[in-house]
Amino acid sequence: CSYFGLPLTIYMVKVSYDQKPFRKTVMQVFDGKVISSPSDTTQVGKMLIEQNPNSNGSLGCAISEAVEKAVTTPNTRYVLGSVLNQVLLHQSVIGLECKTALEMYDEYPDIIIGCAGGGSNLGGLISPFMQDKITGKANPRIIAVEPASCPSFTRGKYSYDFCDTGKITPMAKMYTLGSGFMPSANHAGGLRYHGMSPILSKLYHDGYLEATSVEQSKVFKAAVLFSKLETILPAPESAHAISGAIDEALKCKESGEAKTILFGLSGTGFFDMPGYNDYLTGKMTDYIPTDEELEKSFATLPKVD
Amino acid sequence: CSYFGLPLTIYMVKVSYDQKPFRKTVMQVFDGKVISSPSDTTQVGKMLIEQNPNSNGSLGCAISEAVEKAVTTPNTRYVLGSVLNQVLLHQSVIGLECKTALEMYDEYPDIIIGCAGGGSNLGGLISPFMQDKITGKANPRIIAVEPASCPSFTRGKYSYDFCDTGKITPMAKMYTLGSGFMPSANHAGGLRYHGMSPILSKLYHDGYLEATSVEQSKVFKAAVLFSKLETILPAPESAHAISGAIDEALKCKESGEAKTILFGLSGTGFFDMPGYNDYLTGKMTDYIPTDEELEKSFATLPKVD
Repeated sequence: CSYFGLPLTIYMVKVSYDQKPFRKTVMQVFDGKVISSPSDTTQVGKMLIEQNPNSNGSLGCAISEAVEKAVTTPNTRYVLGSVLNQVLLHQSVIGLECKTALEMYDEYPDIIIGCAGGGSNLGGLISPFMQDKITGKANPRIIAVEPASCPSFTRGKYSYDFCDTGKITPMAKMYTLGSGFMPSANHAGGLRYHGMSPILSKLYHDGYLEATSVEQSKVFKAAVLFSKLETILPAPESAHAISGAIDEALKCKESGEAKTILFGLSGTGFFDMPGYNDYLTGKMTDYIPTDEELEKSFATLPKVD
Repeated sequence: CSYFGLPLTIYMVKVSYDQKPFRKTVMQVFDGKVISSPSDTTQVGKMLIEQNPNSNGSLGCAISEAVEKAVTTPNTRYVLGSVLNQVLLHQSVIGLECKTALEMYDEYPDIIIGCAGGGSNLGGLISPFMQDKITGKANPRIIAVEPASCPSFTRGKYSYDFCDTGKITPMAKMYTLGSGFMPSANHAGGLRYHGMSPILSKLYHDGYLEATSVEQSKVFKAAVLFSKLETILPAPESAHAISGAIDEALKCKESGEAKTILFGLSGTGFFDMPGYNDYLTGKMTDYIPTDEELEKSFATLPKVD
């Protein structure tokens, strides 16, 4: 935005604003105005604070605030970086590049693994291979790895739901934990969204896509192992995919099968050193919502005929 | 080291250990044992703590501790990342790549600008061009940009001195502020060394190399401007070179001359967000040592016939 001369306001989930101040500072370097959400700059933010003054916020809250701000401010548009169809389309360059690169090595993946929060990263990686699968040209296994703390695919409901906590967006049919689901203040912030991309949800529902969930400490264990072997420090989000790839590779080792595994390493962990430090010093805890918590959240799903 | 199965101990300057915990955590991810220096693990560390219990440490202190540990531990070697001749040789790949890249554009730099702390980064960038200059093939201006807080070239003495605070290393003839110089706890940690590479010192002494110094807040101003224009967030060390390049480009703008300027952008600022935050929130201060402080440090220079 700074580069194009556009003013930018960002609604940043409160827990990330507090735990990840450097991401905020990066945005400020580029003249972005960063607001901790929920905030008192919107009606929905004020309502959410009134309901819970100690709210950590969530992507769903931040979306509500940003949408309200956008629709009530002239000449302003709202942009979301995940979930939506056009974002997946945009991200598909990841998968197209991977496919071309693999062709140069005369390889085709037997298994494709991506991390899944809202789904754009995963959707971008798998899209060209999913096309092959749907059209019958190839039959790779495609696996989404999501955090056990926010398990939209593996424990969510396939249902119409709001994309935001404040219920001001249109509804989408997707795997969801309920727009009222408030995920724990854990570290893989980029994967902390109550729902999953409608496209991916449909593919999962129809059996084209598998899903698995993994606890945070196992994710960081995989990240540290990967760092040591590859000298690349991955983002915790990406490390979900790494964890999944390690699991599949170990299965191959056991069975003696040779398989080509493609996984998405989408981000650097340079901004996530507090998480790494928590892991290395034994301070990291795993949070897995109980069935009761999920049922309570499912009860907030809108009734649709 | 982790990749090659070698155990690694790092003596990290105390002020960096405290201010930049994420660098420490990165090293720990790779199984590095990181010790805040001065420490009680060496004789020289104990001595330095006794002299000043509140010491922030310096590269000179950390070198003393690491050298002592290395020479008193079997099968252990000491590695320094800057200053020394073999490090400059190793870094010269930077300059060779730049030269080849410029040849592809049919360009040769009129001005070459690098940041200067111990000098390895600068030395690596300029070496192939310096060869041209010395052999008379070309005559580019070559400019070192150092922090005003630690001005070895611009305010130092060309003299024999110890490379470390504890005076246990061999002496080197170099521009130095005195091995007892304790730089302020500012942000551009990588440029906080009392001396300058002997090779670069000789070249500067003989007039092949210019030098300039710049205050920290001007460095961050340049870094933020560069970020916005280029969408790359530079390390504060690299931003010294950026600041120098902006100055030279503005001179060209004023005079109407067209010049090709090459500068070294050597590192990411992702680990330096506290510094950026201090700058953006107006908390950053500039420290420039007084002549009296420098004279006091020069008085500690060893007497050599």
